[in-house]
This record gives sequence, structure tokens and C-alpha cells, in this order.
Amino acid sequence: MPSIQPGFASIDARFACEVYWGDCDPAGIIFYPTYFRWFDAATWAFFNAVGYSAKRMRAEGRSMPLVAADCQFMHPAEQGDICEVRSRIERFGGKSFVVTHEVHRQDGAVLSRGTETRVWGRFVQGAGSPLKGETIGEDIKALFRAG
Amino acid sequence: MPSIQPGFASIDARFACEVYWGDCDPAGIIFYPTYFRWFDAATWAFFNAVGYSAKRMRAEGRSMPLVAADCQFMHPAEQGDICEVRSRIERFGGKSFVVTHEVHRQDGAVLSRGTETRVWGRFVQGAGSPLKGETIGEDIKALFRAG
Amino acid sequence: MPSIQPGFASIDARFACEVYWGDCDPAGIIFYPTYFRWFDAATWAFFNAVGYSAKRMRAEGRSMPLVAADCQFMHPAEQGDICEVRSRIERFGGKSFVVTHEVHRQDGAVLSRGTETRVWGRFVQGAGSPLKGETIGEDIKALFRAG
Amino acid sequence: MPSIQPGFASIDARFACEVYWGDCDPAGIIFYPTYFRWFDAATWAFFNAVGYSAKRMRAEGRSMPLVAADCQFMHPAEQGDICEVRSRIERFGGKSFVVTHEVHRQDGAVLSRGTETRVWGRFVQGAGSPLKGETIGEDIKALFRAG
Repeated sequence: MPSIQPGFASIDARFACEVYWGDCDPAGIIFYPTYFRWFDAATWAFFNAVGYSAKRMRAEGRSMPLVAADCQFMHPAEQGDICEVRSRIERFGGKSFVVTHEVHRQDGAVLSRGTETRVWGRFVQGAGSPLKGETIGEDIKALFRAG
Repeated sequence: MPSIQPGFASIDARFACEVYWGDCDPAGIIFYPTYFRWFDAATWAFFNAVGYSAKRMRAEGRSMPLVAADCQFMHPAEQGDICEVRSRIERFGGKSFVVTHEVHRQDGAVLSRGTETRVWGRFVQGAGSPLKGETIGEDIKALFRAG
Repeated sequence: MPSIQPGFASIDARFACEVYWGDCDPAGIIFYPTYFRWFDAATWAFFNAVGYSAKRMRAEGRSMPLVAADCQFMHPAEQGDICEVRSRIERFGGKSFVVTHEVHRQDGAVLSRGTETRVWGRFVQGAGSPLKGETIGEDIKALFRAG
Repeated sequence: MPSIQPGFASIDARFACEVYWGDCDPAGIIFYPTYFRWFDAATWAFFNAVGYSAKRMRAEGRSMPLVAADCQFMHPAEQGDICEVRSRIERFGGKSFVVTHEVHRQDGAVLSRGTETRVWGRFVQGAGSPLKGETIGEDIKALFRAG
């Protein structure tokens, strides 16, 4: 991602995905909210890879709700396209963080590129209760630091 | 629904919906899991109509997970089709119940017809904890009884 | 939308929607790609309202694929929340246009706000064939002009 | 699948999938239409495996719309569950066929079991035009025959 100057030296995560029949619309190409479904799954997979599995997140009553999301669509994708979402932590704020995602197709084409801004939070009283943002500690940042 | 002999004299519920661009596939017709999304929303709307709103369900820690679902697809639907799901309680079992759904298009065509079999349950210790089926009381059945 | 200075004096469109059980995630709030599904449906409804129905779009071999999309999430939404997407044309470019969307909940809360940048295009040889952008004529702009 | 006596000696197909955050509902378990999304993708993957890729299906103007679908839900699935859909051709009719699907979790649990009944069809005049069922030839059946 030469065009983005990350504010944090992040490791990379890779999430495998494929464009299915039901992900496409009558124009025969991917229905764009599919990319955001992939971004969300890619972020959870990223956290799983560094030790925050879905099970652990549930056990600790954690979640990471969105503040903002965006995506640029560079090439149309079709059913059968084998893809990979490459994700990095773009930057950590006090209680929030930004993840960048790029969707690469098997032939090398970059189909889309986007970001998610999320809060690192915890349910005050179990799932369904209000969620409270928590300061992101150095121990968590260290999990994502490259080199 | 002349072809179905209900085992319970149920009131009717009607749920308005429309086929959106993103609900259709490259064949230009509705992607079939959309009907099940509608069935699910129609059942929740049905319960809301008799007094079990989403808010009340949450407050009482209730849910109604599926045991089985099926659907027959009679006519293809296209983007822009205005529809209505007509739902009835087909029958009440001890802890489970069957809802029948018919999807009517504005022009009178019946697009699909299906059923959901669900358990009437309650979370033992809040959302996310295991769910336990509860015997469906006469007070609940009365809410859905016609006449 | 006082915070946005539109480059085009656009009429408003309103798209009714509701947060369903299946639109929510284990945190008990709306799964964020749902907003983009709503934005897409709202844009198609907007075009339908000014004369470009799904049927006409299909007959003329038109589509309006995305170049970019973004959304800010201001308040969490829960199952049962009755909403309305308020849409405007933010600006017309040569072959592209920007739609802004705001999601208002029945109680007045603005849940999210975002934009879609789309190309006004036509399939060269029927659905599924490559799509070619077309210059947006004054006749089309006039359909969306306020006052 | 000991409980099902297939009418056709079919090869097996296996489709890998995983339960993502966005596939789950506020009860913390899989939202049931997800299983039908998987079934659809599994059937397309099955056809791809025997030579009918998405690309070939498009080139030949083929599709395989649904006549009916059903599913039984045996165990709740949670975010992070690694699954596999095992599919077989249950039987071939004149212009239709039945696919059975079983969803196995990594730990061996069978989460759900269902069927899809589909028509083997072709668009009369390109994508979006009416679809006409075609008699399923012996050459096609042979692609799926075991042993």
C-alpha cells in the first residue's frame, strides 16, 4: 500500500474469501456491501490471529463497534473470483483504532481498498448492555507491531 | 391458504416487504435466502403485533430459535416487486410451534410458501448463554387465536 | 443536513426501513453493512421516484455501479428501530454523481450519515456485459433539481 | 448420511465455510438464512468441481433456480465455528434435481441438514430473460456419478 503512510508499523493479516453467486447483483458483479462484510470478518480474523479469538472476546465481554467505514471500488468482481483481504492497523488512538483493508484478486488486481474506524470496548453488564470504550493499552498495541 | 389445514385457528399477520436490487442475483431474480430473511422478520413482526415486541423479548431474555424451515418457490420475483408475507400459527406443540408464511406480490401472485418450526425459549443467564425451551402456556396461545 | 454544503440544489427522497433481528449482531446492535444495503436501496428508490424505475433501468440496460462509499455511525441501532433514510444528490460530475444519505430514527436521532459515489452507466451488450459510463445530461439533472 | 437413501449414487462435494460475526444474531448464534447462503454456494462449488464453473455457466447462459429448499437445525453454531458443507446429488428428475447438504463442524457435530430442489435451466435470450428448463442429459448425470 504505497499510497498510505501508516502511523503505526503494523503486521499484515490475510483473510481468504470468494465471490459467491449470492454476493452478486443483477449487473452480474459483486453487491458492494459484500466488501464491508468481508472487512468486518477480516478484522475479527486479524484479532483472532493475535490472540483475541471470538471465544475470548465473548468471555471478556469485549466488542469493537464501528465509528466509520469507507471503501473505494476499483474493479468489478464476479462470481468465482478468489480474493484475499490484506489488513493492517493504520493507527491507534486513545480508545479507537483504524484498520485498512485491501482486497486482492488471485490475478493480482486490487479490487477495493477501504478503512474501518473502531472503538475498543467492553459491555458494562454482559452482551446487549451498553458498551464502554476502553483505553487501548501498550500490551494490545504490541500484539500488532511489526518487527 | 386452502391447501393447508391448520391445526390451530390462528389470526393472520401481514408483513410488508419489497425486492431490492441487492436481494437479487445475476439471474436478475430474488436470491432465495431472502425469503427466509423475510420469514424471520415476519415472525418477529407477528409476535410484536400480539404484544411481544423486540424490547419485551429482550427484557424477558426470550428468543425463538429454529428447529426447521422450508420454502417452495412458485414464481420468480424481480427488483421492485412489492410483496406481503402473510403468516399464521399452523400449530402449537409443547415447547415448539409452526408458523406458515405465504409471500403475495401486489398483483396477487403467490411467489413462495413455507414454514418455520421454532422453539419458545429463554436464555438461562442472559443473551449469549444457553437457551432453554419453555412450555407454551394457554395465555400465549390465546394471543394468536382467531375469533 | 446543515453540515453539508451541497453543490447541487437537490430534492429530498425518503426511504422507510426497520432494523430486523437478522440485521443485528451478537452485540445486539445493527451489523454495519446493513446501512450500506439501505443506502443502495434508498438510491434505487430515489431514482424510481423521479421516473427511473427498476423496470425502466432494466429495459434501457442501465446501472449505476459504485466508485466509493462511506458512512459514519453515530448511534447504535437495535432490533425494532423504525428508520428513514433521507437522500439527496450532493453533486453531479461528468459521468458520476454523489448521493448523501442520513438515517433518521423515529425519535429524531440521526443514526448514521454517509455518501455513495456512483457512475451513470449502460451495459454495452445486455446485462452481464461490460458497463460504459455515460455523460449525465441536463434532462437527468433536472429530475433531481429542487425548486 | 445413513438416514437418507439416495436415489442416485453421487460423488461427494465439500465446501469450507466459517461462522462470521455478521452471520450471527443477537442470541449470539448463527442467523438461519446463513445456512441457505452456504447451501447455494456449496451447490455452485459442486458444479464447479465437475466442470461447470461460474464462467462456463455464464458463457452457456445457464442457471439453476430453486423449486424448493428446506433445512433442519440440529445444533446452534457460534462465531468462529469452522464448518464444511458436504453435498451430494440426491436424485435427478427430468429437468430438476435434488441436492442434499449436511453442515459438519470441525469437532464432528452435524449442525444442520437440508435439501435444495433445482431446475436445470437456460436463459432464452441472455441474463435477465426468462429461463427455460432443460432435460438433464446422461452426460451431465455421469459427471456426478460415484464409482
